[in-house]
Formats: sequence, structure tokens, C-alpha cells
Amino acid sequence: MNEIIVGVIGAGRIGTLHADNLIRMPGVRLKSIADPLIKPEAWSRRGVEPALDPAVVLDDSEIAAVLICSPTTTHADLTEAAARAGKHVFCEKPIALDPVRIRQTLAVVEKAGVKLQVGFNRRFDPTFARVRQAVEAGEVGDVQLVRVVARDPLRPPIEYVATSGGMFFDMTIHDFDMVRFVSGADVVEVHAFGAVLVDPAIGEAGDIDTAVVTLKLDNGALAVIENSREAVFGYDQRVEVFGSKGSVEAFNESPCQVRVRTAAGVRAENPLFFFLQRYQRSFVAELEAFFDSIRSDREPPVTGHDALIPVLIGIAATRSMREGRPVAVERQQRGRRPEA
Amino acid sequence: MNEIIVGVIGAGRIGTLHADNLIRMPGVRLKSIADPLIKPEAWSRRGVEPALDPAVVLDDSEIAAVLICSPTTTHADLTEAAARAGKHVFCEKPIALDPVRIRQTLAVVEKAGVKLQVGFNRRFDPTFARVRQAVEAGEVGDVQLVRVVARDPLRPPIEYVATSGGMFFDMTIHDFDMVRFVSGADVVEVHAFGAVLVDPAIGEAGDIDTAVVTLKLDNGALAVIENSREAVFGYDQRVEVFGSKGSVEAFNESPCQVRVRTAAGVRAENPLFFFLQRYQRSFVAELEAFFDSIRSDREPPVTGHDALIPVLIGIAATRSMREGRPVAVERQQRGRRPEA
Amino acid sequence: MNEIIVGVIGAGRIGTLHADNLIRMPGVRLKSIADPLIKPEAWSRRGVEPALDPAVVLDDSEIAAVLICSPTTTHADLTEAAARAGKHVFCEKPIALDPVRIRQTLAVVEKAGVKLQVGFNRRFDPTFARVRQAVEAGEVGDVQLVRVVARDPLRPPIEYVATSGGMFFDMTIHDFDMVRFVSGADVVEVHAFGAVLVDPAIGEAGDIDTAVVTLKLDNGALAVIENSREAVFGYDQRVEVFGSKGSVEAFNESPCQVRVRTAAGVRAENPLFFFLQRYQRSFVAELEAFFDSIRSDREPPVTGHDALIPVLIGIAATRSMREGRPVAVERQQRGRRPEA
Amino acid sequence: MNEIIVGVIGAGRIGTLHADNLIRMPGVRLKSIADPLIKPEAWSRRGVEPALDPAVVLDDSEIAAVLICSPTTTHADLTEAAARAGKHVFCEKPIALDPVRIRQTLAVVEKAGVKLQVGFNRRFDPTFARVRQAVEAGEVGDVQLVRVVARDPLRPPIEYVATSGGMFFDMTIHDFDMVRFVSGADVVEVHAFGAVLVDPAIGEAGDIDTAVVTLKLDNGALAVIENSREAVFGYDQRVEVFGSKGSVEAFNESPCQVRVRTAAGVRAENPLFFFLQRYQRSFVAELEAFFDSIRSDREPPVTGHDALIPVLIGIAATRSMREGRPVAVERQQRGRRPEA
Repeated sequence: MNEIIVGVIGAGRIGTLHADNLIRMPGVRLKSIADPLIKPEAWSRRGVEPALDPAVVLDDSEIAAVLICSPTTTHADLTEAAARAGKHVFCEKPIALDPVRIRQTLAVVEKAGVKLQVGFNRRFDPTFARVRQAVEAGEVGDVQLVRVVARDPLRPPIEYVATSGGMFFDMTIHDFDMVRFVSGADVVEVHAFGAVLVDPAIGEAGDIDTAVVTLKLDNGALAVIENSREAVFGYDQRVEVFGSKGSVEAFNESPCQVRVRTAAGVRAENPLFFFLQRYQRSFVAELEAFFDSIRSDREPPVTGHDALIPVLIGIAATRSMREGRPVAVERQQRGRRPEA
Repeated sequence: MNEIIVGVIGAGRIGTLHADNLIRMPGVRLKSIADPLIKPEAWSRRGVEPALDPAVVLDDSEIAAVLICSPTTTHADLTEAAARAGKHVFCEKPIALDPVRIRQTLAVVEKAGVKLQVGFNRRFDPTFARVRQAVEAGEVGDVQLVRVVARDPLRPPIEYVATSGGMFFDMTIHDFDMVRFVSGADVVEVHAFGAVLVDPAIGEAGDIDTAVVTLKLDNGALAVIENSREAVFGYDQRVEVFGSKGSVEAFNESPCQVRVRTAAGVRAENPLFFFLQRYQRSFVAELEAFFDSIRSDREPPVTGHDALIPVLIGIAATRSMREGRPVAVERQQRGRRPEA
Repeated sequence: MNEIIVGVIGAGRIGTLHADNLIRMPGVRLKSIADPLIKPEAWSRRGVEPALDPAVVLDDSEIAAVLICSPTTTHADLTEAAARAGKHVFCEKPIALDPVRIRQTLAVVEKAGVKLQVGFNRRFDPTFARVRQAVEAGEVGDVQLVRVVARDPLRPPIEYVATSGGMFFDMTIHDFDMVRFVSGADVVEVHAFGAVLVDPAIGEAGDIDTAVVTLKLDNGALAVIENSREAVFGYDQRVEVFGSKGSVEAFNESPCQVRVRTAAGVRAENPLFFFLQRYQRSFVAELEAFFDSIRSDREPPVTGHDALIPVLIGIAATRSMREGRPVAVERQQRGRRPEA
Repeated sequence: MNEIIVGVIGAGRIGTLHADNLIRMPGVRLKSIADPLIKPEAWSRRGVEPALDPAVVLDDSEIAAVLICSPTTTHADLTEAAARAGKHVFCEKPIALDPVRIRQTLAVVEKAGVKLQVGFNRRFDPTFARVRQAVEAGEVGDVQLVRVVARDPLRPPIEYVATSGGMFFDMTIHDFDMVRFVSGADVVEVHAFGAVLVDPAIGEAGDIDTAVVTLKLDNGALAVIENSREAVFGYDQRVEVFGSKGSVEAFNESPCQVRVRTAAGVRAENPLFFFLQRYQRSFVAELEAFFDSIRSDREPPVTGHDALIPVLIGIAATRSMREGRPVAVERQQRGRRPEA
């Protein structure tokens, strides 16, 4: 088996996380990483070529696959550039917040004939993967009701809120994907109630911090997403799929399995702190799946289509909340050829 | 302490349940029970006077308190008759499905100056009472999000569906009350998605069997109720209240606390079968609270107001589902004097 | 089905508990209760004839079954007297602390041809009954290892310690029975380590308050009992049976099923306080089983043999601890005719 | 901070595991690995120098620390050789099965003035570390009772049994260390019941496969270890420390946190398969602690003394089982200068 030579664009938190995993991954060689703010010595010491300019990665004919980990506003451009350079692309979500722009990018990728995988890493978490497997295997029968609970351990900085595109696009978007993933169904209609309960400053910045989003799926099932920007007890990430033969439920994971019993009651640990801890294994597994799809020339497990749909749901949810009514999700045929 | 002499009207399932509890209850004497279909010997053997006609109970000047356990359509009339006869009334929910009729009854009760308690027994379940206590004590801070999961272990007979008033009125009505009880807040707006996923015959009978109802509370918090007419693994009754300082969650109760571990995995028991098993203790506790309110001349813990509000929420939920939009709940001032 | 007419001897805590249950039990009538310290009015109000002298119960030809709930030192005499009077006997454990005396009593009972059941109520707890059922059904395969954890929520009064016969006889005796019950095997050898760790006054009174007892069973399996006179978090009553195909484990039961999550961690309830709460249902079930054995003329589920064996194990455990070596349990043929 | 240059002796399962972790560990450089059966290309590709002869590691003056991962019989000799070469030593347990030999080795190490850490990795497992921390912080008060449950997921090959030194030395030895670690106390007396219940061939090879070992600690507390060579539901690794203020209990860890509920009951996952999965993080953490002790010139967290004591306990347990009596553990003063 030949090694896959890889480049990374973006050396921020998520880019560094992926690069660390690539260095340890068998069958893969991380050749270079590009970021205008890069600290070169840290990378060269580990045998990775540092660069300021993404062109160093994109123009390197030895590199077969590129990870796009730069700021969101650059995702579409860089994905297109990498695809045009004939490289397989792993792009952090979202490709863009505008469906038109996403469709353009998907068209470029399709024309280039390269693989594109999008970073919905939670699908690769062993717990959620087991939920999906139970549903797929028919253990719960026909899906009737899906619940996703997703709460961050602490509110984001206000500067972040102002530029994130809104809670539905930077946080709930993972849950829209999760509903699709665990149910195996698509979303046809959305209703959203939002509120500002965590921090008034979030409301002043034009966003919400608490939401209950209900969804109708194309198989007739219903789903509900509960979001909060701040659960003081930690990162709350739970899912239940309920069906005609039973239910499968995913619970939080804790750093250790200990109970302390005293006169005051039984005490257990809070969940793993945040996504870096909770989804540590999923960040590795999604890359392994990406490289597997390259090696076996199969469709990646999270496609460009999967990147587009949650944005369409997010648009419907936003409109529902603003207009005070349920809103249909724009229909998008899977794999249809976009108008380029 | 003088004994409270009690009569029961209605000797069906719930009337018999209450009567059995009354027989064992200290400080109370069950004198008579009336039902057109009564089997006299079973009651006289236990020292309870059986009767065919409710008048035997209502006209007995020794009887201080009456339990109305007859069919729903008779609740308002019998409550009024008992109140006019100067008896304290414990009435099974709902008093009526029409708010106008309920308000009439409440006016009669108020004029008579007797106690009225309505049978929202789940408030007296030790688990849900502990949830309420945690919220009241501020353990979870300001309430931001409430979830009620309520699923029956098996679908009702179709004849029952046709006459029950609809799932929102015979099943979700408990959950509307639970949202108010655990949050300490009132409901201002409702959105409902309903579906027929359990049994097409239920849809043909004009009802739904699956629903996700979202609610806005008057303190700004959001709530969600998940209902199904059939969870094959048993009676699923769970609640979570999430707030600024944490969350409190109520889980199902099982008949025993056992885990069996084999090569196939770890197996635990399903929940207690249905409401008779799950809420056994709450049926006793609600009566004890009723008699306590009589003895101490205090307002009962579940008032006529508490009986009216869930019906108003159910009306809003029904309209929301039919009209495809969120609907405001009719405002009802607590304790305001109704126009008789 | 004819009612069984019952008398109770002893109106202390356990006698009153049984009497309360008898009053509510269908198919049974509690006719009289005898105790030198009885408060007559409380009983006559409930339709039970109070008496100072046990002879009132024993000489009543209408009474078919007697519950012996008097102090331990009177158990053997009263059991014999009741048996000679032709009454079926339910006797609280132990019949006596001296095996010779127990054997005499069993001989009298056998000659009289009446039923005798002994109050090892924990066998009838739904959780432990489920453990036994799993073992009996072969769910865990061949039994290899049994663990019983039994800890009281608070140390006994010193006066009690002085007269109880020692921890092995008033506390561990239940666990000796539990090992036999869940394993379906008999104990052949015992080793005991004891310690005084809870309260030096217990040591000064000649007893221990902490013990680990290991046992060899006649099928080759091993067992271990962990005892403490004081678990500050509450009544700790757990069992595990491990075998060739898996294990079955019984956990504590709590008053409610609630988790509170805050920044400080996840908090759950401590166990039900003590045996009156934890074994409430088992006290009812053991009497129902006793009356069933009378009605169906079958051997009671806890026999005189089952009463004798734990005393023999307790004698071996005491000797093991004192002599610092494992001690064989005196062999006792099941049902052998004692030398009267 | 200067890098610590490291060599590994032994490239079998555990040596390879440690080497993989060293390659990814910041602040450390794995220079060479020696094994008579080494596959050179796998190591040279990863920048590690492969060697057949341990002398390549021992004679390399650049190497500051050596990991001894060779067969048990070579541990003492290689530890001594490495110490004499002035290298800090991390040695897999046990150093030897003969206390005399261990003491000789400890004397050599002491004279050489190098660090020695022994591979009781379970101390570094987050769950057991939390147990220790709770005890140390006084959360459970004075320790009164310790339980260690340790069961392997499948019986070892018979060839392994024949050469392992016996279950007490290759399996229970970890549990002897765990009792000391979590209690903070030393063992003074041991009683062991052993049995052959899993596989008669193990008995024919002169070993046991099931044991209950009880221990008296020097603070008066009691402890019990339950062992089985085969739990068909997986690797069972649990601990409880019970004390005057409460208890702390460590449970098994599962690959994912999922419950499946069907009409057949609630099903959860079995534990992580075996020690490679369960203790993955502890293998990393013990090495980090070893290097920390070198950098800060402090005593390693698991010393030569900690390596010797469990062997002395194992000897006492073996004798107890053979002679049918409790046996005192040979006293060993911590840090006393051995007679070389």
C-alpha cells in the first residue's frame, strides 16, 4: 500500500489537531502545512514543511489530498482550488453559508473528479456510530422520533457570536446533520423556537442562545433538537432514536467511571469538557475514513450533499423563528448536477 | 383528629383503585361507593356500603368528602352536585373538555366554599416531586428548558381513541400539567407537530399517535413534550429541567435493580409496566394531600385553575397542529371569578 | 376459597408491621394479636382482638396460622406450642441460636405435621428474587463466585450489641441465607476476618462491626460476604453471582430516580434508608407465600432446615475468626429426622 | 527543556506498545529498540534504530533512560545492567519472582543512584487514579474495607499457565498493588481460597483459575480480591474503597455509551475488551510520570519497594491456599538497605 501524501491548509486549533493525528497515522504522510501565521520551527522539528502560502500545498504535485482547516470564509475558494489542482479534499464544515456558493463548489469538485469529504466528525464518534448502526440494523424498527440534545459547556465570546453566522449555522448545523445521520431520513419541514436566556449580550449581537427546533422527516417521523450555549455541568451531547421496535439512546461520556457515596448522596463525574475531549477519537476516525475512500475509490462517508443540506435546514430554521411559522426545507435532489 | 368520612362515585378501574387506598388509609373512613354497575358483595364484605345511585353518597350528611371517579362526561355535573351538597370534592381529570363548562363548575365550587382537588396524580410521584423540589430550591438556577417524554406501553383500543377527545386531551394533558408543575411557569404559546406512525387505524379515527409539542413559558423558557401511544419497551415517563445552574433529570423506574451480563451485553429491566404500577404511590399521596388540605383548611395542591389550564393548552396545541402555526394559549387569570 | 384466620404473637416493630400487612391482605383475616405490652384500643379499632397472653391466640381453635414475632429467646417455645396446638407457624428468624434447640423445635413441628416458615424475607425482595431466577434459569451458567455486600446505615445501640448474639448471628445470618438462596448451593467451609472499625464500644461489648467472610460451597464455588455496621450513605444491600456464562448483579434501590447535574458533578439519591423501606414489599410477599403453601399444602419456601443452616454457618464463622483458621460447617442432612 | 533520549529492550507486545507511545510523546526521543527477533524495517522507517543485542542500547552513552520489556526472567539482569550503565530504568513487572533476587536488583539500582519505576500501569488509569485521589482527599474518611474485582475476558493458553508463576503472580499481583495503592496502607496478613472452575486443564497444570483472597491491612482495615481467569462478558476491573465517611467505587469502561431498549429489556455494551483497550491511557501516563520524575529528580511514583511487596503478598497467598490457614506477609521496611 502506497502512502498518501497530505497537505494541510490552516494551522489554527482544528488544523493543528488534524495535523497531530496525521503525524501518528499509518499509511499517510503529512508533508506540509500552510498558514499565514505559522510558527515554522514547531513543524519542521516534526518533519513537516511549514509554509505561509497555501500555494505551497496546492502546487505540490506529490500531495494527493488536502485538508482545508482555514477560516470558514475561505473554504469554498480553497476547496475549488484544491479540486482544480486534482487533489482530494477534506474540508471543515461548512463549505459556505450560502447554498448558491456551496453548489458552485460542489460543481467544481464534481467536474474535477476528486473526492470531497466534509468535517461532520460526530458521525465517527463510537457512541453515535453505534446509534446509527442500531437503527440501520433494524434494532429499533421504523424510526418515529429522534431527539438530539446539544449544549456547550460555556457561552462563546461575543466577538465570535457576531461573526459565526448565528447559532443555527455554527452549532445546530451539527445537530441537523446528526438527525439525518442517525435516522437515515431527510428533513422536509422545520419549526424553531429560539430565546436569549444565557446572556443578554448574545441577544444584542443579534443571535439566540437557547432553541428548540422540531423537524418533520420525509419518512413521516418527527425530530427535536434542544440547544443551549451554556450547560454549566459540561458538554451535553445526547441522542435518542425511538421506533416501532424500541429505542437507542446515546449518553454523555465522562473522564472516568467513578461514584462517590457519602451522606450527601451519590456523586458521579460530569461529562468530558468539550468537543476536543469528547470527539477526540472521531477526529481520527473521520480522516481514516477519508483516506479509505481514496484508497478504495469509493464515495466518502460524508459528501458535499451532506454539507449542503444542513445549511438549507438552518436557513429554514432561521426563517421559522423570524416569521413565527413552520417552514419547508428547500428540496435538493441528492447528487443532481448543479447549475454551474 | 376526627376521621374524614368519604364516599366514592364510580367503581371502575380508577374508582376501585382509590377505594382500595382509602380502606387502608389512617384517619379516613370510606363509607359508601356508588356505581350503576356495582357488584355489591365485594364492597359490603369490606365494610363499604355499595349503591347504584350517586345520590346515596351525595345525600349522606355524614360524608364530608366525595371522590368523582365516574366517566369524564359526568365529572362537571357531579362535582357541582357534590359542591352544592357541601362536600369537598376530589375529581378525576379532566373536569370537562370545554373551558366554558369547567369555568361554570369552578364558579359553583367557589360559591359553595368547598375544596376541589383534581387528579393530576403524577405531581405526587416521588421522582417528579423531587424534580419540582430541586427546581424550587434553586438547584438548577433559572429554568431555561423543560423536556417531558411520555410514551404509553401499548396503543389504546380504537373504541377508546374515538371517544377520548384526542391524544392531546387524554394523554398529553398530563404532560401540559407536568411542564407547569416542574417549571413553576405558565405556558403562553404552543406549536405542535403530530403524526400517525403507530397505527393507521388511529389516524382513521381522526387522532394522532405521535407528537412533538413545543411550548413558550411566561418566564421566557422553552419546553418540549414528546409523546407516543406505544413504546414496546414499556411505559416511558421522563422529565428534564435545564437551567442556568444545571439540570435535574427524572428517569424511569424498574420493578427491580438487576443487571445481567453475558457475552451478548449487559441487560437491565424495562420500566414498570404502566401507570398503575408506575404511579402506585402517587395515587395514595394525592389523596393524603387532599385530606390534609381539608384538615388544615388550606388550598389543595392541585386546584380547579390547574384543571382548566391544561385544557386551554390542549386547545391551542390542537389548533396549532391543524393550522400549521404556533398558537397563543388563551390567558386565564389565576383565581379570577368566572362569569357564571 | 376460605379465609385463613390468623393470630400474631408479639406486637413490637416487626409484629406490628406484619399485622398491618395482614389487615390489607385478601384471603386472610387477622383475628387477634397478643403482647404483654399491647395497647388494646389501637387494635380493637381496626377489628383485631388485642390480648396480653399468647394463650389467647394459641387456644383459639378458629385460628389456623400463627406468626411468632416475640423476642428471639421465646421463638422456640412458642413455635413448639403453636405446632402442638395444630397451627401453621411463621416464625421470625432465628428460631434459636443453639442448633440443638432448633433441632428439637423442628422435631416438634414435624411430628405435629404443620407448616413452618422462617422469616428470611429478603428472598422475596423483587431484586434478589430476580437474581435467584436468573441463576436458576441458567442465565449465568455454572455458579463460580458469589458476593454479598450488606451494610447497615447506622451502628446499633450498644445495649442491642450486648444481647444480639453477635454480628454474625443478627446481621450476617441474612447473608449466609442469601448465599445459599442465590447460589442454590450449600456452604461447606468458612473463613472470617473481623474488625472493630466503626465504634470501639462495640469491641468493648465483645463484638465486631466489620467483617469479610469467605465461604466454600459444595459445588466448588467460592463466596464472599462484606459486612459493616455503618455505611453513612445508607443501607447497602448488593449481590453478585458470577458464573461460566456471565453474571447477575443486584444494586441498591433509591427512593426516586433523579440525577441533579451542576458544576460540582452529577448527584443521585442514596439508597432507601433501612430494611423497613428497602424490604417493604418482601415482608408482604413472604406472608403471601406462607399462606399459599398452606392453601396448596406444599412445603413453605423457607423451611426449618433453612433456619438451622445459617446458624451452623455463623458458628463456624465465629470459630474461624477466634481461632484464626478456616472452619468446616457442621453437616446437616436436609430433612433428616432429628433425635428428639 | 532537553529531550530525554530513550531505548527500549524487548519488542514484543508490551515493548511495541510502549515504543508507539514514545514516538508520539513530546519531550522524548526513542533512539533504539533491541530484540533478538526484531523486524528492522518497521522500526527504521519510523526513525528508530533496530538492534538484535541489548548492548546496543545499554552501551549508547546518549541514551538516558531504558525501558525493560523483555521476558520476565531477564528483568533483574537487564535492570541491573542498565543501572550500572548509569541509565534510569522503567521495568515491566515483576522484576523477579524471588524476593531475594529483587532485593539484589534494588541494591544495585540504589548504588547506581538511578531512577527505577515498575510497570504497575493501572495506578495511572484515570478511573483508579480518581479512586486514589478520593481516598487521599479524605472523601471516604478512614478506610475500612477495600474490594478489587479482576477478571480476564478469556482464559490464558495452557502453555502460558505453565510458565507464568501462577495466577497470584501474573494476575493477582496487579490487585495486590491496587489494594496498597487505593488504600494507602500495607498488607499484614492474607487468607486465600482458590479453585479450578474455569478449565480443568489449568488445574492439571498446577494452577487455579478462581480465587477469593482476603487481606488485613496495617491500619486495621480489611480487603478482598476476587479473581477469575474468564468472564465471558469481558474484562471486569472494578474497585471499591469503603470508609467512615462513605465509599468510592470504580466501574468498568465501555467502548460507547449507548442503551438499546426493546421489548426484551434494556441492553448496554460490555466493557472494553482487555487490558490493551482498558488501560490504553494508563500506559501513556505511566511513562510520562517516569520522565517527569527524571526531569524533576524526584522519586518515581511506583518504586522498587512497590515492586517487591506484591511478590511477598503473592508468596503469602500461595502458602495460605496450600496450608489452609491465614499467613502473615513477610515484613519489609520501606527503603531499607538490602543486604547485597
